[in-house]
Amino acid sequence: MLIAYVPHTTAAITINENVDPDVKSDLLAKLSALVPQREAYYRHAEGNSDSHLKAAMLGHSVTVLVEASKLLLGRWQGVYFCEFDGPRRRDLMIKPLSFRATNGD
Amino acid sequence: MLIAYVPHTTAAITINENVDPDVKSDLLAKLSALVPQREAYYRHAEGNSDSHLKAAMLGHSVTVLVEASKLLLGRWQGVYFCEFDGPRRRDLMIKPLSFRATNGD
Amino acid sequence: MLIAYVPHTTAAITINENVDPDVKSDLLAKLSALVPQREAYYRHAEGNSDSHLKAAMLGHSVTVLVEASKLLLGRWQGVYFCEFDGPRRRDLMIKPLSFRATNGD
Repeated sequence: MLIAYVPHTTAAITINENVDPDVKSDLLAKLSALVPQREAYYRHAEGNSDSHLKAAMLGHSVTVLVEASKLLLGRWQGVYFCEFDGPRRRDLMIKPLSFRATNGD
Repeated sequence: MLIAYVPHTTAAITINENVDPDVKSDLLAKLSALVPQREAYYRHAEGNSDSHLKAAMLGHSVTVLVEASKLLLGRWQGVYFCEFDGPRRRDLMIKPLSFRATNGD
Repeated sequence: MLIAYVPHTTAAITINENVDPDVKSDLLAKLSALVPQREAYYRHAEGNSDSHLKAAMLGHSVTVLVEASKLLLGRWQGVYFCEFDGPRRRDLMIKPLSFRATNGD
């Protein structure tokens, strides 16, 4: 198992199709339509409240299963690191974890 | 602990109320209103960009705690497998993991 | 590593900026604009379908890495417990887990 964790508040990590680049641009276009950068009621002075919400909607970590040192992603899946207030220099924390097999207890 | 992971890009797994079936239909209705199947700006040729975004919004894995071989879900909670571009034959990867107790270090 | 799990269907746990309180109010304002409490098509009789969807969008658990008994959060990050149909008395399940280091296998 592998945990990838984003220690930033305007960045997210998520999993999606990684074959047709139009999927990525459609996701970003729709997210920006749902959560535009400006809203009359935003109060946060940095002007990036949209980035915080988009990051929260996608999440700050992914958990992926690993077998024989390979990520068990689906056939079309890729892991996306998403910065919604960039470009910025960013860190990603990756923690591989090992377990003994159990019967679910 | 149990990890359930969805290896598909138009499917998600999430946790929600599993008593009144109206909760499920309300969730789906609102998600479809937020992310309709068609948008003028979608470019992905398969016509399922909405499914990719809905799946990303709910997430591709859930982590649930387990005790004495039982899921520690809340009283009203159930685990939902969600296919947003179905019906399709789908896989779900379920990994039970066992730990020794620690003091948090 | 630490898992925090919310056993409720109208509550969520997420990670976001925890410095300027305007970030929190902007997030809540935008979420409520996206998912208002009332929609003509909601059928769930309790009137809290919006709370269920908001909770599903943010998620019911967070996974945070831990080192030397400290959460490895980013500089600006805090963990938010979010109740969208409160105030209610709520539980949060926190499970610290310990691993041996591996090479990713």
